[in-house]
Amino acid sequence: MPDLWQDAMDHAVTLARKAGEIVKDALQNDLKIMCKSSSVDLVTKTDQNVEQLIITSVKEKFPEHSFIGEESVAAGEPCVLTENPTWIVDPVDGTTNFVHGYPFVAISIGFAVNKMLEFGVVYSCIEDKMYTARKGKGAFCNGQPLQVSDQKEINQSIIATEFGSNRDPDAVDKIFSSMRKVLCLPVHGIRGVGSAAINMCLVASGCVEAYYEIGIHCWDVAAAAVIVSEAGGVLMDVEGGPMDLMSRRVLAANNNIIGERIVKEIEAFSAVRDDAPVNPIK
Amino acid sequence: MPDLWQDAMDHAVTLARKAGEIVKDALQNDLKIMCKSSSVDLVTKTDQNVEQLIITSVKEKFPEHSFIGEESVAAGEPCVLTENPTWIVDPVDGTTNFVHGYPFVAISIGFAVNKMLEFGVVYSCIEDKMYTARKGKGAFCNGQPLQVSDQKEINQSIIATEFGSNRDPDAVDKIFSSMRKVLCLPVHGIRGVGSAAINMCLVASGCVEAYYEIGIHCWDVAAAAVIVSEAGGVLMDVEGGPMDLMSRRVLAANNNIIGERIVKEIEAFSAVRDDAPVNPIK
Repeated sequence: MPDLWQDAMDHAVTLARKAGEIVKDALQNDLKIMCKSSSVDLVTKTDQNVEQLIITSVKEKFPEHSFIGEESVAAGEPCVLTENPTWIVDPVDGTTNFVHGYPFVAISIGFAVNKMLEFGVVYSCIEDKMYTARKGKGAFCNGQPLQVSDQKEINQSIIATEFGSNRDPDAVDKIFSSMRKVLCLPVHGIRGVGSAAINMCLVASGCVEAYYEIGIHCWDVAAAAVIVSEAGGVLMDVEGGPMDLMSRRVLAANNNIIGERIVKEIEAFSAVRDDAPVNPIK
Repeated sequence: MPDLWQDAMDHAVTLARKAGEIVKDALQNDLKIMCKSSSVDLVTKTDQNVEQLIITSVKEKFPEHSFIGEESVAAGEPCVLTENPTWIVDPVDGTTNFVHGYPFVAISIGFAVNKMLEFGVVYSCIEDKMYTARKGKGAFCNGQPLQVSDQKEINQSIIATEFGSNRDPDAVDKIFSSMRKVLCLPVHGIRGVGSAAINMCLVASGCVEAYYEIGIHCWDVAAAAVIVSEAGGVLMDVEGGPMDLMSRRVLAANNNIIGERIVKEIEAFSAVRDDAPVNPIK
């Protein structure tokens, strides 16, 4: 079988690197925040510039492909995954980090065909780490192969998660309650770098055993999902069962033992799906 | 006045860099954990090797100086700060990170004379960031001057803190309760890299507005305290008032407005002082 999507993946890596340069340039200037939907959900001009760069280039090179991007959806574009080859893009994952210069900001480019993820590229641009994975061909960081941790004991594990941007008291209750239960399993520690994509790449790298979060979007996790799974890890819903890319919920783990142990501690809640008919996000 | 301690500071930088090489070497081999006082307080051979390297070299070059180090105190040495020139050393800050290969591990070397901190060196060795500060002479990272954030609005801030290694239910209650109150001020986010010294260097760098924690030790924060204050930041107790290096509590902030706002949200508790007559730590 010819390697159908290698050309697209190579292009994604090139675009991620270009986008990273824009982000790094912007960080060296003063950031002008264009609008805020809430004090934790900042949207910057850079976000829009980067997404525009990626869309324009993808449309030119692959005019028949579809596109789901954070900024496009915010601007009213539909967020529906079809059978068509689809680029799923977060131009700046870790926007809050970006605004503060906190050094974890990623460009995330996932690619799905027939609703199955084919490749993922996550460029953690301040660290200059290019994470890549192609279905069936392994996961890499700057060309070095990645492998998840082989830990099977939850009490020897580090778990990544985030407080997120939701300040609704019921959600905050559940987020804190879950985190406390996980901490007191006990685990070695809880970490979170403020970027879903990078947290998942740290699972792929074996630095943390698992990452879970409710409230993320498909563009935050599509690329990194391929990276985790090609590094030997597993993806599931926070209540167990298969991950649903549009459900706003993710649990990535080094193996099923750790993943399912964490599922037992999570007080799950629902978020409005990314593909809800009328998407009220932003 | 002659620059009395520059020689010691230069030596500290040299030692931190050497120690960083040992740590990075060890990370590339399998880690053999020697003993555990709890599942979150791992002590590795590297920790002891690095501290021994630093002690030996300091004793040779500055035989009249005193020494407070995490591993020496664990081995029964006293932890009392006298008027004598004293090196206060954490050979591997972020031991849990180290064991997992989570990329924030620091060598922390502080230096006090007449109980006043004179200089601090924090080497975040995986990132290869050498943070240095000398009293009255500014703070630097890899030679570039550092400056805290000028943010005065708490709801535009990122706050760093940690869950720490304490799993006592009362302490965990207070840690979670404080964190929730801080999150819902609201702030932009809560972060924590798993190393007190690096969290404080991120305050000095302007990436986060403040960092607080109860349960840290003098060797975790002595060096970084100089770096924060030379970058224009402030240090205080978690209940306000001056920081007490031996109290196991620290709040580092970009300014008093942010620092004092956080003080109001923290449910403080006490930890056994580092200089308690019979130190039960470890």
